[in-house]
Amino acid sequence: MASQTRQWLLTNPPVADIKLSGDDATFSLVTKELPPVGPNQALVKTLYLSNDPAQRTWIQKDQDPERLYLPPVQKDTPMKAFGICEVVQSEAENLKKGDLVLTEANWTEYSVQDAAALRPVQPDPEHGIKPTHFLGSLGFTGMTAYWGLVDVVRTTASDTVVVSGAAGATGSMVVQIAKHLVGCKRIIGIAGSDEKCRWVESLGADTCINYKSKSFKEDLIKATEGYVEVYYDNVGGEILDLMLTRMKRHGRIAACGAISNYNNGNEKQISNWNEVIFNRIEIRGLIVLDAMPKMGEIMETLSKGVKDGKIKMTEESETIVKSKFEDIPSTWMMLFQGGNQGKLITQLV
Amino acid sequence: MASQTRQWLLTNPPVADIKLSGDDATFSLVTKELPPVGPNQALVKTLYLSNDPAQRTWIQKDQDPERLYLPPVQKDTPMKAFGICEVVQSEAENLKKGDLVLTEANWTEYSVQDAAALRPVQPDPEHGIKPTHFLGSLGFTGMTAYWGLVDVVRTTASDTVVVSGAAGATGSMVVQIAKHLVGCKRIIGIAGSDEKCRWVESLGADTCINYKSKSFKEDLIKATEGYVEVYYDNVGGEILDLMLTRMKRHGRIAACGAISNYNNGNEKQISNWNEVIFNRIEIRGLIVLDAMPKMGEIMETLSKGVKDGKIKMTEESETIVKSKFEDIPSTWMMLFQGGNQGKLITQLV
Ligand SMILES: NC(=O)c1ccc[n+]([C@@H]2O[C@H](COP(=O)([O-])OP(=O)(O)OC[C@H]3O[C@@H](n4cnc5c(N)ncnc54)[C@H](OP(=O)(O)O)[C@@H]3O)[C@@H](O)[C@H]2O)c1
Ligand SMILES: NC(=O)c1ccc[n+]([C@@H]2O[C@H](COP(=O)([O-])OP(=O)(O)OC[C@H]3O[C@@H](n4cnc5c(N)ncnc54)[C@H](OP(=O)(O)O)[C@@H]3O)[C@@H](O)[C@H]2O)c1
Repeated sequence: MASQTRQWLLTNPPVADIKLSGDDATFSLVTKELPPVGPNQALVKTLYLSNDPAQRTWIQKDQDPERLYLPPVQKDTPMKAFGICEVVQSEAENLKKGDLVLTEANWTEYSVQDAAALRPVQPDPEHGIKPTHFLGSLGFTGMTAYWGLVDVVRTTASDTVVVSGAAGATGSMVVQIAKHLVGCKRIIGIAGSDEKCRWVESLGADTCINYKSKSFKEDLIKATEGYVEVYYDNVGGEILDLMLTRMKRHGRIAACGAISNYNNGNEKQISNWNEVIFNRIEIRGLIVLDAMPKMGEIMETLSKGVKDGKIKMTEESETIVKSKFEDIPSTWMMLFQGGNQGKLITQLV
Repeated sequence: MASQTRQWLLTNPPVADIKLSGDDATFSLVTKELPPVGPNQALVKTLYLSNDPAQRTWIQKDQDPERLYLPPVQKDTPMKAFGICEVVQSEAENLKKGDLVLTEANWTEYSVQDAAALRPVQPDPEHGIKPTHFLGSLGFTGMTAYWGLVDVVRTTASDTVVVSGAAGATGSMVVQIAKHLVGCKRIIGIAGSDEKCRWVESLGADTCINYKSKSFKEDLIKATEGYVEVYYDNVGGEILDLMLTRMKRHGRIAACGAISNYNNGNEKQISNWNEVIFNRIEIRGLIVLDAMPKMGEIMETLSKGVKDGKIKMTEESETIVKSKFEDIPSTWMMLFQGGNQGKLITQLV
């Protein structure tokens, strides 16, 4: 039985860029004693880690806890992360050795957890549902996509929708939900390579535009001729700024993420603010935690979508990176380099 | 009878700053022949001009007409402006010499107008209602304040409201409507001098903060302790950026104006965009034209407010600048220099 665990601690909360090495490295690897497993607790081993851009916002230096939607990671404590773990030893009635659970695993090999914080995970091989899907399409990511698109900005079949980060975990779900569940009029993806764009189109986007292409601006203007009702924003920054000029009068923006800002400290971003006024744009920030009361309903809708073949969960919709424990930070960093298609998952080996 | 008129034309649509003189001056003064007065038309003389920051946005170089809420002013045509005029000669049944009318007077001494475009103005000396009030508190300005605060961001008595440009035409009405018609919990003004701030407080703000003071940021943070539900934004830019950090979770922002941007071309503005996401802020752009269907109702509410003594229309709530025709542009420019308190009106002398 494990009595020790390796952990990645947050040692230097970053202002801008993440540093993977050097004296001021953002994270550092330590080995810690594990506490004994008490009643109604379990010792779990981390199998898969969810990689989320939002984790970057949880570690921002001097982040005011009152202004974040969950407690920021404190200096010299384990890096927070969701994951799928296997129960190694259980002192809780409802859990047995070998069970798979979803939990706040953090960047740690083993952890002792309260049973109440462990959510059993039920794969369904018949429908191709694997454990990792509960970190992505059938987890917070899928819920975020559905909640933002349907509940927050009230997207309906008559809307044309643009979604950025379209080849990512959230964006690829937005595309599929918009196309196959809502039945939107037209869907335009934005992603970081031609290859990703072709995949986004295979999921149901009418077109997808590579924002790294020289002709991006013209391509987007052409694709949004007549303007669009809904923009689902996963990236913020320049793409958001450009999209302000492509919204229909009274258009709606779901402000879901701003990955382009997360590593750039306090840079100024928006030059087209007048568009918000002139064209009466409605912008709504969203955090998936607000969807909790509707979680059961949304999950049922998504599972049905999968079973009906409307939402695809193929090998292409996850980027599972087999990583040594030492490589957790560099695998996570792939998010900011566009290294993933669909959900980026670390499989600990 | 006038057969000629002086006019200010837009000769060099500006990219950033307005130029009042030189070869590339934004405006130029010309004299033009007046057309004959046809049936159902009237010749009118401009008495008062409304000065609106929005006029700056109507003349932006290369402004795409599709993205503005009314047709931009074309190069070499008269500068657009609303005004109160006196009928000099009428060929329309419902108008007679001496009548006062509200119309798109433009920066022109005399004009020949279709009677259908002239809205008769009825002052009410008993209640202190003067013709100029129909350009401000009882005109588009009052309507903008009411529509934005009550209809667009649904402000109720339980809300704390911050309003920028609080000593301006729109802002000073927002303060009074919030305090005396909606009955908001707490009202915090932001304005450009200590003197203006004291006036804003006399209108009903619980406190008003001078954004030109060195301690502005700390003062605002203190005044918004516990955060606020509603921000009525008249200025955009840095004050908006700071206010993003002072909004309550699920707070609402009325994006009414962005005067701090109007002369700075395409500068980037917002560094706190993450706040929109983390704190699920709702932002709604607004244009008073959307309030037209409710105009009668809103005007009745405001007039009643005046008659009940809840909305003050004193000498202090207008800055009436007696100007020669030659000085129209420089009087208008006072808007951007904070030279007005309440509605800035040009009285042609
Ligand atoms: N509000 C919420 O509750 C909530 C919940 C989950 C996620 N989110 C947000 O949603 C967004 C997507 O998250 P995710 O988990 O689905 O991650 P993801 O999209 O799977 O991965 C991040 C992707 O972002 C793109 N990217 C990286 N840097 C970029 C830049 N500078 N500009 C534009 N795109 C960039 C990359 O794809 P390319 O190759 O296309 O560049 C990368 O693959 C994030 O902003 C995240 O914070 C919000
Ligand atoms: N959306 C609509 O339908 C609509 C309708 C009417 C007006 N508006 C907008 O509402 C705002 C106010 O218009 P208004 O007609 O009532 O004008 P106003 O507030 O009476 O006059 C403009 C005031 O703005 C302030 N100001 C100037 N430059 C500034 C800067 N860089 N930063 C901060 N404040 C600055 C000045 O006061 P200080 O001394 O306080 O700086 C000035 O007195 C404008 O942005 C306008 O475009 C929108």
